[in-house]
Amino acid sequence: MDSTELAGRLAEIVGERHVRTAEGDLEAYARDATPLFRHRPDVVVFPGDAAEVAAVLKLATELSVPVVPRGAGSNLAAATVPLAGGIVLVLTRLTEILEISAPELLARVQPGVSTRALAEAAAGRGLLYVPDPGSQVVSTIGGNVATCAGGLRGLKYGVTRNYVLGLEVVLPTGEIIRTGGRLWKDVAGYDLTRLLTGSEGTLGVITEVTVALVPKPAAARTGVAYFADLAAAGRAVAAVIEAGITPATCEFLDRTCVAAVEDYAHLGLDTQAGALLLFGDDGDPEMVQASLTRIGQVCTEHGATGVTLAESVAASEELLAARRCSLPALSRLGSLTILEDATVPRPKLAEMADRIAAIAARHELTIGTFGHAGDGNLHPTCVLDVHDLDAIERSHAAFGEIFAAALELGGTITGEHGVGAAKLPYLERRLGADQLALLRRIKAAFDPAGILNPGKLGS
Amino acid sequence: MDSTELAGRLAEIVGERHVRTAEGDLEAYARDATPLFRHRPDVVVFPGDAAEVAAVLKLATELSVPVVPRGAGSNLAAATVPLAGGIVLVLTRLTEILEISAPELLARVQPGVSTRALAEAAAGRGLLYVPDPGSQVVSTIGGNVATCAGGLRGLKYGVTRNYVLGLEVVLPTGEIIRTGGRLWKDVAGYDLTRLLTGSEGTLGVITEVTVALVPKPAAARTGVAYFADLAAAGRAVAAVIEAGITPATCEFLDRTCVAAVEDYAHLGLDTQAGALLLFGDDGDPEMVQASLTRIGQVCTEHGATGVTLAESVAASEELLAARRCSLPALSRLGSLTILEDATVPRPKLAEMADRIAAIAARHELTIGTFGHAGDGNLHPTCVLDVHDLDAIERSHAAFGEIFAAALELGGTITGEHGVGAAKLPYLERRLGADQLALLRRIKAAFDPAGILNPGKLGS
Repeated sequence: MDSTELAGRLAEIVGERHVRTAEGDLEAYARDATPLFRHRPDVVVFPGDAAEVAAVLKLATELSVPVVPRGAGSNLAAATVPLAGGIVLVLTRLTEILEISAPELLARVQPGVSTRALAEAAAGRGLLYVPDPGSQVVSTIGGNVATCAGGLRGLKYGVTRNYVLGLEVVLPTGEIIRTGGRLWKDVAGYDLTRLLTGSEGTLGVITEVTVALVPKPAAARTGVAYFADLAAAGRAVAAVIEAGITPATCEFLDRTCVAAVEDYAHLGLDTQAGALLLFGDDGDPEMVQASLTRIGQVCTEHGATGVTLAESVAASEELLAARRCSLPALSRLGSLTILEDATVPRPKLAEMADRIAAIAARHELTIGTFGHAGDGNLHPTCVLDVHDLDAIERSHAAFGEIFAAALELGGTITGEHGVGAAKLPYLERRLGADQLALLRRIKAAFDPAGILNPGKLGS
Repeated sequence: MDSTELAGRLAEIVGERHVRTAEGDLEAYARDATPLFRHRPDVVVFPGDAAEVAAVLKLATELSVPVVPRGAGSNLAAATVPLAGGIVLVLTRLTEILEISAPELLARVQPGVSTRALAEAAAGRGLLYVPDPGSQVVSTIGGNVATCAGGLRGLKYGVTRNYVLGLEVVLPTGEIIRTGGRLWKDVAGYDLTRLLTGSEGTLGVITEVTVALVPKPAAARTGVAYFADLAAAGRAVAAVIEAGITPATCEFLDRTCVAAVEDYAHLGLDTQAGALLLFGDDGDPEMVQASLTRIGQVCTEHGATGVTLAESVAASEELLAARRCSLPALSRLGSLTILEDATVPRPKLAEMADRIAAIAARHELTIGTFGHAGDGNLHPTCVLDVHDLDAIERSHAAFGEIFAAALELGGTITGEHGVGAAKLPYLERRLGADQLALLRRIKAAFDPAGILNPGKLGS
């Protein structure tokens, strides 16, 4: 079937104005937020409800046409690039917040709701939606669930998987199922809710999400500590944990990032420091104050060259902004930015940062590293000239070595961004051939025709 | 192959003294803690490591012999009764705590370690292993993971799934895989760690578990409130949640349970009350004190007829014991005790309790109900004369109606005990035919010969 005919069949399902085949549209949906990956779909379709999604998938299975489900496309692993063409199925028309229940501490939303919109709606009811991925302003809840998005609160609060209670999912063969529900405790059947969370649009299409909320902490404050190098910052984090404190936020920036952020945002950061540690806690105001004071003390005892506790909510927000603008700040240093996502056990953080620095030097690359010290999640970020093909080649080699180093230290190739097409070549090294074969059998159990997001997880 | 020949082949793998075929052994492993379910295996085998488990499973797949993996057998859903005979594979030789890492906040243990042993080892390092199922004194970690065990801390802390970081698992076909690891953030591949958690020994055999620990709270205290009925207690719990408090523990006992517990343990409970609410919090001592005082106030404002806050750790423990001895106390009322596990959304708790009472009355049965008010998890417990076959018949009908009521109220047929053989007949009502078919395809992806725990989840 050619793409005009396909578009016609899809228009019968979703209505003509929700099917796009114009050059500009195909080009727009050829990419996501991942640099260097691009492949045009044949058609872009915007279903209006689960029944339409089901009809599209049934048709695609019948015709063996690839389907790539997509929200905002803010993912950084090329998970939503339609490598094999076919249909890009965009869920952004499904933007309804169906319910926020304060007594039940939960929200039920459509997949196209932005993370920020959910967070704000929850806050309006005195509640907190915990996961806060870097892209939360644009990212959708459907995408967050599909990638098991992380964020700054991993150590104390966990990631998206810890907050998904239930899903409505359309299987590639067109059946609509509901997994989990509104319950904290439910063991009736295999845990499909969690299996689908992080399955990157390869097992089913999420059409509704029920998430747990928590009471909004009465207070939240941050502080910053400077160190001579990341090794010293790492030792301080270990000491904080061993003191029995679990900070809500514990982020780090290396020297390159501190300089870039200061140059970008003029926050008055100490650019002489080798590493910056941003820590925060939330809860009862007095407890937060005590917790931050104690963290500051432990940092000082472990070689911090300076410690500042935010005196106000505004000052706290400003410090958090320093961390949140690491990526835009680094991006200004070159025309191409490759942001990666290796994770190691927390005590190996400093060693991993040292290895990244050595790998960058060996390949003559600028790599700034920031990330989540609390959960060992590093974001080495390579800044390049997009026209320097040799440097791009060297960056691929460097990232291969970075992933190998993470695995050697007991870590993983992706902590929160996902596998997508970008990390698939490294997956066997992480999981082994037997587990990879098992993933493929699971994929086939959901998607016998292999139409959903081919060339990604499970392929 | 007859069972003598099978035993001989198994002895070649694990050594003769770790294979049992004596009448007494077969009878002992014909049951678990679930009443009314019993079926003898052909042979009982005690492997000493993952390689032996792999060899046993490979042989079983080759011969198409059923294998039922089992820890302490304390489950209440007949999940470890060998319904189709074959091999019972007992993991209780694997009792090593391999590692407790305070800096990494994790433990790595073999599956036969008891929940209590892990909790005590963690406590010795100033850490807390959170999940605390009722059977923790005897239950094993392998069994806790296989059933996704719950406990008293669900609302604030979550259940076993929230604490499992990584697994070593032997597939039915003999491959040994490692899922997850030591990381809080890891999205490399489908979430097999969580899929296997709660899979009740139907997808693979767990041979090593890595769990997250948390810093031991500096203080933990409990209090008790009495109400005229469960509806009033339910309203008070809702008000506590809406006040922004998330108690670490929030348990209830109905009138029947309060009377049975007082008669059994002589704790000085108010046996005139229609319902008892046991609440607790943990953390910073001052915060705990403030939290308990506030919960007590809210209970009083919502009709509590009496509130007592424990003045000491010992008094706290005594109140917790009241809840923990509900089952033994009820068991004394009859020669047969059937403990069930329906769960409803928290605001429906009182309505569900009323329905259970009406169902019990209609069927002329004694059903006491206790459970976790914080997460809507009820344990209606029917006490019977084991020789009264008519009453047993009526109890089956009553539980069928109880599960139907839970589903009607948006709940589930099992919150934390599992499906096993006991709840399998109700599973389609909970999940629907399409999802049940999907579970079977997933089961086949792991276990093509269908040897693992047949007649349970995925069958």
